[in-house]
Amino acid sequence: MTERRTLDRDREQRVRQVFANQAFLCLLGVELREIADGRVELALPFRPDLTQQIGYIHGGAVASLADVAGGFAALTQFDAASEILTVEFKINLLAPSRGERLTAVGEVLKSGRTLTVCAISIFAWSNGASSLCASAQQTLIQIRSKENGR
Amino acid sequence: MTERRTLDRDREQRVRQVFANQAFLCLLGVELREIADGRVELALPFRPDLTQQIGYIHGGAVASLADVAGGFAALTQFDAASEILTVEFKINLLAPSRGERLTAVGEVLKSGRTLTVCAISIFAWSNGASSLCASAQQTLIQIRSKENGR
Amino acid sequence: MTERRTLDRDREQRVRQVFANQAFLCLLGVELREIADGRVELALPFRPDLTQQIGYIHGGAVASLADVAGGFAALTQFDAASEILTVEFKINLLAPSRGERLTAVGEVLKSGRTLTVCAISIFAWSNGASSLCASAQQTLIQIRSKENGR
Amino acid sequence: MTERRTLDRDREQRVRQVFANQAFLCLLGVELREIADGRVELALPFRPDLTQQIGYIHGGAVASLADVAGGFAALTQFDAASEILTVEFKINLLAPSRGERLTAVGEVLKSGRTLTVCAISIFAWSNGASSLCASAQQTLIQIRSKENGR
Repeated sequence: MTERRTLDRDREQRVRQVFANQAFLCLLGVELREIADGRVELALPFRPDLTQQIGYIHGGAVASLADVAGGFAALTQFDAASEILTVEFKINLLAPSRGERLTAVGEVLKSGRTLTVCAISIFAWSNGASSLCASAQQTLIQIRSKENGR
Repeated sequence: MTERRTLDRDREQRVRQVFANQAFLCLLGVELREIADGRVELALPFRPDLTQQIGYIHGGAVASLADVAGGFAALTQFDAASEILTVEFKINLLAPSRGERLTAVGEVLKSGRTLTVCAISIFAWSNGASSLCASAQQTLIQIRSKENGR
Repeated sequence: MTERRTLDRDREQRVRQVFANQAFLCLLGVELREIADGRVELALPFRPDLTQQIGYIHGGAVASLADVAGGFAALTQFDAASEILTVEFKINLLAPSRGERLTAVGEVLKSGRTLTVCAISIFAWSNGASSLCASAQQTLIQIRSKENGR
Repeated sequence: MTERRTLDRDREQRVRQVFANQAFLCLLGVELREIADGRVELALPFRPDLTQQIGYIHGGAVASLADVAGGFAALTQFDAASEILTVEFKINLLAPSRGERLTAVGEVLKSGRTLTVCAISIFAWSNGASSLCASAQQTLIQIRSKENGR
């Protein structure tokens, strides 16, 4: 809908560095697909150890993917001296998270001086077709310096 | 506050069985501590592979713990023929998730014919002292038979 | 984005009837602008008695508008024998609610057998220009017959 | 549970003044019952013009009451130079809002340098007995000076 603006190379490099430093994303197998200004796309390939009792990807893993997609969308718009912390998020699980992988699109809805609000959509992919399986809304705070000032 | 009622042995057995069948909980290292009627307590020991870039437990892992605590609190009140699915939840991350472990208390706020609403509190433990680090509110749906009828 | 389907006249008539029967909407001055299948548009003209201490429309009034927009979007897709009740919603207030009026667009994200999930955007209008001032996500339940079966 | 600390007279006076300056609260008929440090109690007497089509108090009015209860609980802890704005809230409607009046208890869960998180419980009163009818969780931001710095 809106024109997607690319990031300059320094900023993209920094976002990729923060991504690489989050051990939890490696544990889950989250992949960083695309980065633009205020928008990221992630993927989470299916793995048996991500599932709940029925064999779908666990809601906690879906929520983690949503949190990360929003957090990195916000991070694309901040300078190197800032940390971004999730204040809160809300997620609706709309349909079973099954198939070969999930993808998540995180987008900045509103960027303020202190707070950023993101919208996240999660899709389940099966045989080349995708369907919306979760929708989330998230608030983040920008912390200058290293101190936790929530 | 309210008297905690214990579960009969069959029901407790069933709850523990569902817990054991969720591969994702094993991946994260979630432990089931206490089960009562409408209330469960879980623990998540700190592990380096659960962290984000600052070294705290990742918000996604905290959200997963909250989702599971509410889900199992709801499960203690349903019969064996039902599945419980998370409809949605909202979580506020109140303070850094650091220390030796997190614990989560999930409690049923309201149990209806179709929907259950739970409140979840998450505590960070450090040197024997705990502090509230996240608070969540969750809606779940009871599905009779195996079909997903959200 | 998606083609907007119009409602048949009976269904539109029923939606308008439910709207007219909600005394609270009259108190606030909410207006029903457009109805389509799974989508409604409402307006709330500015009035001094809707404001908070700074003179913007009160967050409670904005939240009410969001709740109603989602509720009526869901109602367009149900048959006459059903009641629709809000299970829960979450709203982010993104910018001051000032200007001549607010408009709200409620859209069905997912319609299930029992639950419907809606997304709601709220815009503030000032001198002919609009800006997004709130974003909400809502879960509703369809109750057949008159009984409250949440 | 925790000892309730009373407010000094200046601060209580200031909270009551902000309350009196919110025209929307007058429109709904919200009453300020009790103020303590980090906790307020409000009441909303039943009125036919607050209802939805079944005759219960409208979810929007319930949400407004929740928003206000959390906002004033936060306000009790801030100095006179600050404005408090709602960032977001989430509410579960647990049972029909019927009876002679609703009461709301707003309590500060966590107070940070910039953000405050509150929990709100809403009760419906009928023939002298109360039952929990809604539960909400809310994030607020403290703005120093008059500028909107979200």
